[in-house]
Amino acid sequence: MTTGAQEEVKRRPLVGFLGPKASYSHQATLQSFPEYEWDLTPLVTIPDIFAAVQAGDVAYGVVPFENSTNGSVVFSLDCFADRNRLYPDIAVCAEIYLDVHHYLVGRLPPSSVSCPASTAIPTTGGVPFSPAEDNAGSGTRTPTESEPHPPTPRAHPRADLSHIRRLYSHPQAWGQCTAFLSTYLKGVEAVDVSSTSRAAELVAADPTGTSAAVSSAVAAQLHGIDVLAECIEDRPDNTTRFFVVRKESISPSAERAGVDGRNGAAPQRDVSAELGHPLSTTGGGKGAKTKSLVSFTVPHEAPGALADVLGCFRRFELNLTSINSRPSLVKPFQYVFFVEFQGHKFRDPEERVKGVLEAVGEVAETWRWLGSWDDQRAVSLS
Amino acid sequence: MTTGAQEEVKRRPLVGFLGPKASYSHQATLQSFPEYEWDLTPLVTIPDIFAAVQAGDVAYGVVPFENSTNGSVVFSLDCFADRNRLYPDIAVCAEIYLDVHHYLVGRLPPSSVSCPASTAIPTTGGVPFSPAEDNAGSGTRTPTESEPHPPTPRAHPRADLSHIRRLYSHPQAWGQCTAFLSTYLKGVEAVDVSSTSRAAELVAADPTGTSAAVSSAVAAQLHGIDVLAECIEDRPDNTTRFFVVRKESISPSAERAGVDGRNGAAPQRDVSAELGHPLSTTGGGKGAKTKSLVSFTVPHEAPGALADVLGCFRRFELNLTSINSRPSLVKPFQYVFFVEFQGHKFRDPEERVKGVLEAVGEVAETWRWLGSWDDQRAVSLS
Repeated sequence: MTTGAQEEVKRRPLVGFLGPKASYSHQATLQSFPEYEWDLTPLVTIPDIFAAVQAGDVAYGVVPFENSTNGSVVFSLDCFADRNRLYPDIAVCAEIYLDVHHYLVGRLPPSSVSCPASTAIPTTGGVPFSPAEDNAGSGTRTPTESEPHPPTPRAHPRADLSHIRRLYSHPQAWGQCTAFLSTYLKGVEAVDVSSTSRAAELVAADPTGTSAAVSSAVAAQLHGIDVLAECIEDRPDNTTRFFVVRKESISPSAERAGVDGRNGAAPQRDVSAELGHPLSTTGGGKGAKTKSLVSFTVPHEAPGALADVLGCFRRFELNLTSINSRPSLVKPFQYVFFVEFQGHKFRDPEERVKGVLEAVGEVAETWRWLGSWDDQRAVSLS
Repeated sequence: MTTGAQEEVKRRPLVGFLGPKASYSHQATLQSFPEYEWDLTPLVTIPDIFAAVQAGDVAYGVVPFENSTNGSVVFSLDCFADRNRLYPDIAVCAEIYLDVHHYLVGRLPPSSVSCPASTAIPTTGGVPFSPAEDNAGSGTRTPTESEPHPPTPRAHPRADLSHIRRLYSHPQAWGQCTAFLSTYLKGVEAVDVSSTSRAAELVAADPTGTSAAVSSAVAAQLHGIDVLAECIEDRPDNTTRFFVVRKESISPSAERAGVDGRNGAAPQRDVSAELGHPLSTTGGGKGAKTKSLVSFTVPHEAPGALADVLGCFRRFELNLTSINSRPSLVKPFQYVFFVEFQGHKFRDPEERVKGVLEAVGEVAETWRWLGSWDDQRAVSLS
């Protein structure tokens, strides 16, 4: 028997996301964890999320894993690599895709009202110019040797940007808006901050009105600042994939297995289905696509070990959907490898996932199962 | 017959490196291309180097490829991915390893003379404190939930750092100096610039003396600024690997093969040896270790294609030494894969490299040989 208060806690478990509020992680989290059912908690860094899940402070954590334009989020890969064994029990239980639209947000120029995009005057480096002096007025850039065909930005500023002296954003955002930024804000100082939402917050707090941020429309709204340009991302199909992580181990033996870096054999049931996680309801029916993540290292004195590990997946006919590597930090130019493949550890009627994990365990130096989940874009990528 | 001037040009070909002068790329370049034999030219970006080599403006280009702490340099991977087919003829012909030591450089505090490390007063966020108020005085940080055992910096400042309000460096450098920066300069604004040498230049130009850079000792010397702390990198074995690239194709047919993204069958001889490149002199004797790089994409509608390509290397017993992937930018979550393996296209007596390239060509959607070179650290990594 539990008390009403305990039941209330059980019905509204905590979910940690990469804050602050209004970040893209927040938006992704809301897609799967609506606020009327879950208590959402912003955390400061990706390692903070892993630590909070490991400590049991939150039931789930939502972390960005890869962006379709920029590639992998190395901070998340480094947490999954778990070189210092801080997160032995953490595994992925779901994925979330979020279409990412970046906005240039800030203060309109002092003496201006918002002007329509067609009459906006682009600038370079904060120095105003007339379209006759440069071809950026047409939204194109001067071709250079390294960029004979510079990409044309998809968006135009809503207002003159010549008052902008500093830009704030998350490092990943710059690489997703190169055409717009190099056309309209070339040479303006770019300052990395921990999130796009934090960038909007800094702009809101700047009394000079000369800073701008690359962030979401939601962040601009939250902080009461103006939208200077909409959808400034290079590609219309700019998408970020997030992972939902949680503590997987459910028994002391599983915890021990996790701590020694070999928890591949640990929990033998689908905790996700038991918890009734909203993203696990497709249940393993025929045709349901699933994916799993494993990490491994190979003995560097054994030639061919990397190919041997990858050969295991081929032997069990499990399709690889992505491969990543990060420095092992044990010795220079040794790596932790990450392989994502189709299959689910707990819905494995033909025991192919069980088979491949055993086979990997025989040839890898260390390895770790890092989760299984429903494929939210049931398309084979390999 | 050639004139003396032409001979002079031939004897001193141009080498492009990632500038400005005194960058780590410059140091790496000097290791292989001494200035008495080669004319070294600083270029602004990694794409600029690829473009200059492709255009024939320089004979060789030197680009950073991976760091032992931070991992791959995605800008270089993206150039090798060559999604817009700007660099069809470029291939790697050599690798250079450089031990990287980062220095904190700037101006000593206004009223100070350099004080020995043992009496230096560490600061946080530019606000001076006494060791009694915080434990950073011992060179350690307060443990947090996400970092229960924060790493201890290996270096101590030579002087008080409380006047430092802004830090400049290349994005990769921050991740290599986390212990020092988060202990002694926590909260100080960090500004990304294009190179560590450029960072030192900005510091030299700042009349307030309140900015500092993470750069090389050479850059500090070049720009006449002070060393505030030595060897602030997290790891004593911090090493960057550079690739030397050059234009490989030597015939119109090879150029055509390159343009269509399938230049694997192009030049059938070791141009490097002919040019007498200093890094190609080990010649293919027995026991000489060599490496090659290929990129490929796989048809996303063909399950198992990635495993099939990787299986080729296993079949021909060619050891994989690293794997990377980058977004293909054709469709979200499709990738360009990069595989480095042991073997040399032009020193291939058993024709295993020839065999594997043919086999890859049969299963990959697109593929490209990206160079072969002597392994400068003849240790198998896989």
